[in-house]
Amino acid sequence: MPDLDLAIRGGTVVTASDTIRCDIGIRNGRIALLAEAVTGAARTIDASGLLVMPGGIDSHVHLDQDSGPDVTMADGFESGSRSAAAGGNTTIIPFAMQIKGRSLRACVTEYHAKAEGQSLIDYGFHLIVSDPTPTVLNQELPALFADGCTSFKVFMTYDDLVLTDRQLLEVFSVARREQALVMVHAEGYDSIKFLADRLEQAGKTAPYYHGVSRPEIVEREAAHRAISHAELLDVPIMIVHVSGREAMEQIRWARQRGLKVYAETCPQYITLTADDMKGLNMDMSGAKYVCSPPPRDTDSQKAIWEGLKQGVFQTFSSDHCPFFYDSPRGKLSPKGRTSFRWVPNGIPGVETRMPILWSEGVAKGRISANEFVALTSTNHAKMYGLYPQKGTIAVGADADIVLWDANRKETLRQEILHHGSDYTPWEGFEVTGYPVMTIARGRTVVEEGKVRGSPGDGRFLKRDKSPYALPLGA
Amino acid sequence: MPDLDLAIRGGTVVTASDTIRCDIGIRNGRIALLAEAVTGAARTIDASGLLVMPGGIDSHVHLDQDSGPDVTMADGFESGSRSAAAGGNTTIIPFAMQIKGRSLRACVTEYHAKAEGQSLIDYGFHLIVSDPTPTVLNQELPALFADGCTSFKVFMTYDDLVLTDRQLLEVFSVARREQALVMVHAEGYDSIKFLADRLEQAGKTAPYYHGVSRPEIVEREAAHRAISHAELLDVPIMIVHVSGREAMEQIRWARQRGLKVYAETCPQYITLTADDMKGLNMDMSGAKYVCSPPPRDTDSQKAIWEGLKQGVFQTFSSDHCPFFYDSPRGKLSPKGRTSFRWVPNGIPGVETRMPILWSEGVAKGRISANEFVALTSTNHAKMYGLYPQKGTIAVGADADIVLWDANRKETLRQEILHHGSDYTPWEGFEVTGYPVMTIARGRTVVEEGKVRGSPGDGRFLKRDKSPYALPLGA
Amino acid sequence: MPDLDLAIRGGTVVTASDTIRCDIGIRNGRIALLAEAVTGAARTIDASGLLVMPGGIDSHVHLDQDSGPDVTMADGFESGSRSAAAGGNTTIIPFAMQIKGRSLRACVTEYHAKAEGQSLIDYGFHLIVSDPTPTVLNQELPALFADGCTSFKVFMTYDDLVLTDRQLLEVFSVARREQALVMVHAEGYDSIKFLADRLEQAGKTAPYYHGVSRPEIVEREAAHRAISHAELLDVPIMIVHVSGREAMEQIRWARQRGLKVYAETCPQYITLTADDMKGLNMDMSGAKYVCSPPPRDTDSQKAIWEGLKQGVFQTFSSDHCPFFYDSPRGKLSPKGRTSFRWVPNGIPGVETRMPILWSEGVAKGRISANEFVALTSTNHAKMYGLYPQKGTIAVGADADIVLWDANRKETLRQEILHHGSDYTPWEGFEVTGYPVMTIARGRTVVEEGKVRGSPGDGRFLKRDKSPYALPLGA
Amino acid sequence: MPDLDLAIRGGTVVTASDTIRCDIGIRNGRIALLAEAVTGAARTIDASGLLVMPGGIDSHVHLDQDSGPDVTMADGFESGSRSAAAGGNTTIIPFAMQIKGRSLRACVTEYHAKAEGQSLIDYGFHLIVSDPTPTVLNQELPALFADGCTSFKVFMTYDDLVLTDRQLLEVFSVARREQALVMVHAEGYDSIKFLADRLEQAGKTAPYYHGVSRPEIVEREAAHRAISHAELLDVPIMIVHVSGREAMEQIRWARQRGLKVYAETCPQYITLTADDMKGLNMDMSGAKYVCSPPPRDTDSQKAIWEGLKQGVFQTFSSDHCPFFYDSPRGKLSPKGRTSFRWVPNGIPGVETRMPILWSEGVAKGRISANEFVALTSTNHAKMYGLYPQKGTIAVGADADIVLWDANRKETLRQEILHHGSDYTPWEGFEVTGYPVMTIARGRTVVEEGKVRGSPGDGRFLKRDKSPYALPLGA
Repeated sequence: MPDLDLAIRGGTVVTASDTIRCDIGIRNGRIALLAEAVTGAARTIDASGLLVMPGGIDSHVHLDQDSGPDVTMADGFESGSRSAAAGGNTTIIPFAMQIKGRSLRACVTEYHAKAEGQSLIDYGFHLIVSDPTPTVLNQELPALFADGCTSFKVFMTYDDLVLTDRQLLEVFSVARREQALVMVHAEGYDSIKFLADRLEQAGKTAPYYHGVSRPEIVEREAAHRAISHAELLDVPIMIVHVSGREAMEQIRWARQRGLKVYAETCPQYITLTADDMKGLNMDMSGAKYVCSPPPRDTDSQKAIWEGLKQGVFQTFSSDHCPFFYDSPRGKLSPKGRTSFRWVPNGIPGVETRMPILWSEGVAKGRISANEFVALTSTNHAKMYGLYPQKGTIAVGADADIVLWDANRKETLRQEILHHGSDYTPWEGFEVTGYPVMTIARGRTVVEEGKVRGSPGDGRFLKRDKSPYALPLGA
Repeated sequence: MPDLDLAIRGGTVVTASDTIRCDIGIRNGRIALLAEAVTGAARTIDASGLLVMPGGIDSHVHLDQDSGPDVTMADGFESGSRSAAAGGNTTIIPFAMQIKGRSLRACVTEYHAKAEGQSLIDYGFHLIVSDPTPTVLNQELPALFADGCTSFKVFMTYDDLVLTDRQLLEVFSVARREQALVMVHAEGYDSIKFLADRLEQAGKTAPYYHGVSRPEIVEREAAHRAISHAELLDVPIMIVHVSGREAMEQIRWARQRGLKVYAETCPQYITLTADDMKGLNMDMSGAKYVCSPPPRDTDSQKAIWEGLKQGVFQTFSSDHCPFFYDSPRGKLSPKGRTSFRWVPNGIPGVETRMPILWSEGVAKGRISANEFVALTSTNHAKMYGLYPQKGTIAVGADADIVLWDANRKETLRQEILHHGSDYTPWEGFEVTGYPVMTIARGRTVVEEGKVRGSPGDGRFLKRDKSPYALPLGA
Repeated sequence: MPDLDLAIRGGTVVTASDTIRCDIGIRNGRIALLAEAVTGAARTIDASGLLVMPGGIDSHVHLDQDSGPDVTMADGFESGSRSAAAGGNTTIIPFAMQIKGRSLRACVTEYHAKAEGQSLIDYGFHLIVSDPTPTVLNQELPALFADGCTSFKVFMTYDDLVLTDRQLLEVFSVARREQALVMVHAEGYDSIKFLADRLEQAGKTAPYYHGVSRPEIVEREAAHRAISHAELLDVPIMIVHVSGREAMEQIRWARQRGLKVYAETCPQYITLTADDMKGLNMDMSGAKYVCSPPPRDTDSQKAIWEGLKQGVFQTFSSDHCPFFYDSPRGKLSPKGRTSFRWVPNGIPGVETRMPILWSEGVAKGRISANEFVALTSTNHAKMYGLYPQKGTIAVGADADIVLWDANRKETLRQEILHHGSDYTPWEGFEVTGYPVMTIARGRTVVEEGKVRGSPGDGRFLKRDKSPYALPLGA
Repeated sequence: MPDLDLAIRGGTVVTASDTIRCDIGIRNGRIALLAEAVTGAARTIDASGLLVMPGGIDSHVHLDQDSGPDVTMADGFESGSRSAAAGGNTTIIPFAMQIKGRSLRACVTEYHAKAEGQSLIDYGFHLIVSDPTPTVLNQELPALFADGCTSFKVFMTYDDLVLTDRQLLEVFSVARREQALVMVHAEGYDSIKFLADRLEQAGKTAPYYHGVSRPEIVEREAAHRAISHAELLDVPIMIVHVSGREAMEQIRWARQRGLKVYAETCPQYITLTADDMKGLNMDMSGAKYVCSPPPRDTDSQKAIWEGLKQGVFQTFSSDHCPFFYDSPRGKLSPKGRTSFRWVPNGIPGVETRMPILWSEGVAKGRISANEFVALTSTNHAKMYGLYPQKGTIAVGADADIVLWDANRKETLRQEILHHGSDYTPWEGFEVTGYPVMTIARGRTVVEEGKVRGSPGDGRFLKRDKSPYALPLGA
């Protein structure tokens, strides 16, 4: 096999269903063969003692996204993709967001410009629809779907993004017609505003009250509402970043009824709790943990594990949404220091997602290595139209691979991470299991934490229609 | 006992818990004694072979309510109360509705004027809040509660009545503070509008499509939303006119969680189905069955019975909301003939409520006579602050009594009814069990279908706070 | 009204549905009238400031029951009925138990002899079927039902009582045919034996391990099994002394399916926990709390309250089953001191049942006074064929009445109780609400803790068929 | 690659998670490589247009099993394995049954003798424990587990096999200690006997009454009981041949609680109904459909699909249990013609299992091809300790492969099948999708329905401990 570019030898290959001792031969960035012994390649990597898994796909990251006045996102495509790769990922799917009043297509074009030449790994775009005008619904969306942005997100909260129920129904209806996959941020806008106003009136403005203003009931109600709209129109939906028992049980209920309601959860919901937002004596350091939905409590963590084990969740993403807390490059704004309401919602996590799930899940015996691969890679690829190019280790697939040391212990710290933020919410968190090499289309991108890849190595991915977006009645 | 005004002798007294052979002595409009034999009264009624039950309380009727241009409600207080009494009722609670942009207090004052001197039986007012301005929330509502209107209804649909979620939360919050009981019309506005628009665009305008435009999912979603808002604020709510399995199961779920979520259902949901709105060949005669929520199917009828037997429903009301179909006094408007969207939502039913529940429930062995009394009278009194003045047969209570012939067979027909409408949706419906005399505060109001009472005999009832409106955390 | 024997004046009468200020006139042991003012009776009791409620009916008590070698039951009919009356009860229904290998009829005859002339209050008999021979099933049971023993209990555990599933089906089948009400002690025999053997082998013999040997799963499994048998044959059943969440949820599930599965719970399951059986340092004093099913934990107490509020439970009984712990009159046997397995299963409680439910339920706002009456009296009468003679305050009913001081605080102590046991499990338990006078058929039986009645005042009650025992398909 | 024995070229490889266009190279009966193009092998099979899937593993078949007097099983290892292979299977796991009163080990030894040299494909043994003496529990079972029979089945019904609850607990306890996987036949013995006796007494003896004597409630009860025993001891169990909604919902409930309760279903439960047992005018031809549990109704078929889609079921097996109806080689016995009670319980199905699931599942869009592979092969291998030797197409695995024509239409008929029975219950059933070649360890066993393999080609498989048999608390 003299024409192989690369052989990965001696490792144990793990896919969503199989765990197999075999070598991998790579040619032109794709997997050319799997065999007991692959010899004669131009280059050989020794994976003895390591797991060889599909590179992670993080289908929920925010990069270089407009975040309002006074707020700068801490990662663009370059640092974001570098951090992703350092965490074992080979593909990311950030969001191209429509700004209300503007053309979605124009926003996407601009977002392409931001990404161009920057990313170290391949990337696709989800769309965010915030202003579903007839033009957007009937012209721009179908064209963008055809261009390979085959999924879009809608928000049930946030001043600049929230859609009315009527608008949700209109966009769901387009999703059904076009077989696009709808992602839903399910939190109830009015309830949050009502509670936030009351809390502010009562002088309760510390970051901790961010969580109080968005209780689980508010997430559950929105999840139920989205499910009902989806059931009404017979359109599949993906409810993202599910945080707790209440919403999880709604989704489980929907699935038991036979509905195509998919769900995603994130590291913060199995490791953090609302109390983390208390910071030190309710000071603003709790802002480092402010995200939406907020972390809950230990019973909800238990519920999220139930959901992971029982198939309620298909994907485990980071919801990476990085901001600065206090550094020369940026800091929490003066306004943000006055109230939780002005703290940007989001935490960095693209680099720590896979180690956290492996450590808390596989190392602790809660899920299998195969389930880990499904939750961090394969299901993302299948759900979002990237399979079989991405998401598995199989002949013909892109050689997107992470070499994983299941026994390596690491303490998560800001100084070992590669993101743009000046902190990590998991500072000091100990994990067992860590990536030792990330290979994207056959090239080594990160090795032992050292970046080997270059901006521009990553390409934009035109994604297929999601097979998961087929209606029941199709 | 020479000072008794009236003795009712020989009957079997039925209350919400007891079935007892005894006589009743009445003095000054109130029950003075219960005894094995009551003699010497000024007047005696022979109730041998009859059941002697608390007069019905219909806590959900619409009379003389502004129904928009081109539409006249078929009953005011005079004909409405007459029809109620003929159906065995001694108390009604219609709605004093706020018109958007106007003072609620002014609307109530006007409604008092409409009622004054008209009603043959006692009546209270629920309020309808359609425009919850700060003045309404903080001044008018507390004052009106103090005046004995201790419950109010909010709508989650209808152009002129719908409240936003924020408004719902604001009024729920007032209800909690004041211990007022909130009644909720739970149907999702945006979903209905979306569906109705699509149906009209498709030329599907017959009355049958009224039902299609408001499917069970839409009612369920709204019920879940109302429950969530109520849970968020810890305020009891009463979800009225529950029509089917989906909403019933949400309410049952809420009650299993320990929430104070009460519910009402109506005769239409145990006897009619969506197909009734088809009329003859999808003609407009289906308009006679148009009400909201619409009747469903036989599985939902089964679910409503489950709810009645399992304590999910506390009250069984008529939702009497009478219009004209085609008579000299009024008719379906030309516009109403063009589309279901313009058909007024409502059917007459105050007179047929009790016979239908007795016949379908007690006579068919589904519920006991005691449960019948609870569902048609006692629970209404307790729920809405009229107990023990109303709702039972006990010493000291108003002598509001219906003599009931459990074996009497009757065919419901427009010609035997006393309401203002020119039709009944139950034309030809056969019942077993019928009222033979209605006695209100000791006076005979209706006897064998003949009206003996006079307009003005009925008084406005200042109601107490509802004990059911106490929050869990109170 | 010169021929009245007794007037109870000034009190507030509470029934299962009503709370009414009125007087009561009594003649020949029955309630002759209810009126605003009853004068001229031969004797008058002033009930001002007191509640006047139907006397308690305790439908689950064990008296003078054969309890195996070395064990003597601490109460016969005389002390048992005295204690019951002192606790506000006017009727008890103990069990006439068949001894395996013997005629049930003969056992009942002997039990009549034990009761004859002993009881201070009226009493009925449930049967216990432990040996369902064809003679018992086809001759004795029908005859005994005709004699007014219209309910019987079966056991799914205990060496001397356990029935096989086949036997359960045979007796359920007879119950259906005869409209007798089956009561089920639901605990799984084999599982308990298996666990008890293992515990003994491990030297774990302290009373605490009684609870470990009968975990909730074992009760739940048996409840599910009994429900399944009942569903198979379409026969109503009453599952007695439900102790925790697991069994409660099975029963709730069955009722939601529309099955006639009734349930009873007891004071021990809302006030005690498994830890009470630890005694002092795991010594044998924990034996004072040994009963079956055993008390559980605080979550199960919560579940029992849910069941009480949601209508899962119809009756609240004591399961009074009194033994001696250490007194001249009797003591825990030497064998019983060697292992939990030989500790007699049962605790005294007939006298404390009503104060405990009032205090924990009504005084703490969990249930209403009307619900208290239903749970302690009315529902027992209706369920077991004693209504309307017993279980309510209504014209014609027996004058079985308890005067209740809702505000009286009492500390439960052995020295104030009237049972035969030498201890109470509630020693030191503080209650608010206590009976001040118990009146049975118009006679004062107990007044302020002092016994005024005499053995033999109570009569055997021939009970009607239970209306609750009608099959769904009847 | 000159040393390859076989190349399978041009097909689409389907595993439990992947669908990949690639070739397969086979050496020494194992898969040596997967590559875009495999050339130079000694032999090449053209799989163009075909799916290349792991050979089926049927983990629930009965062969040459003692079936009582007058009854001969229609398949031994030779015809049974031939039929299996013709249906796309490469591995079967029949049952080595203990006869009550005999040594289990001796029975296994005899069963080895029956299999020796007979099977065309590889096979393992499950054990059946019918007489759990201390010797069996403590000596024979551990030894047999060590010999590679790492799973065993227990019965909750059948005269000769039923275990008491105590015995179930004893064997579950051994399973936990030894990490053996318990399979449970869940039907309640006593209930079935009770019903069968009543039916026979009523003269209802046609095969149809087989189903009436074993209603869903009886299966549900037993499932709940087995789950409870398993929960009590924290031991995983596999409930086999689940037939309907009732049992499915119990298992789903258990899994939602986090219990390791696995489940299997079979073709009969998605294609047949109880009415099939009616035969022609209730004649004995209905006997061809008699199996236990019996087929149910269309709602239960729907429930089984829900369970397949929602992950309630891990395996889809045939429960092949073949008898003769009326042929020279054997027939329904004279006794069997007198009553359903004597009809042997079982139907042939090992050959039709995979076509039926593909056709009803994949071809009709209910499940994916990957789910098909998981349900018919991979999960069996993982569950029963054969993975990764069996159950997948991966480097190093046995070359057990079925070539599948997804588009081939076939009408199932006795004349095209290879089993020993003289009928198939699916006579005339049309399927889309059929195996065209079965390859076991690299040898062609069946090709286009023609048998190419020989008895004795198959080997006994010593199975590993099941990773699914680890307790929660391990």
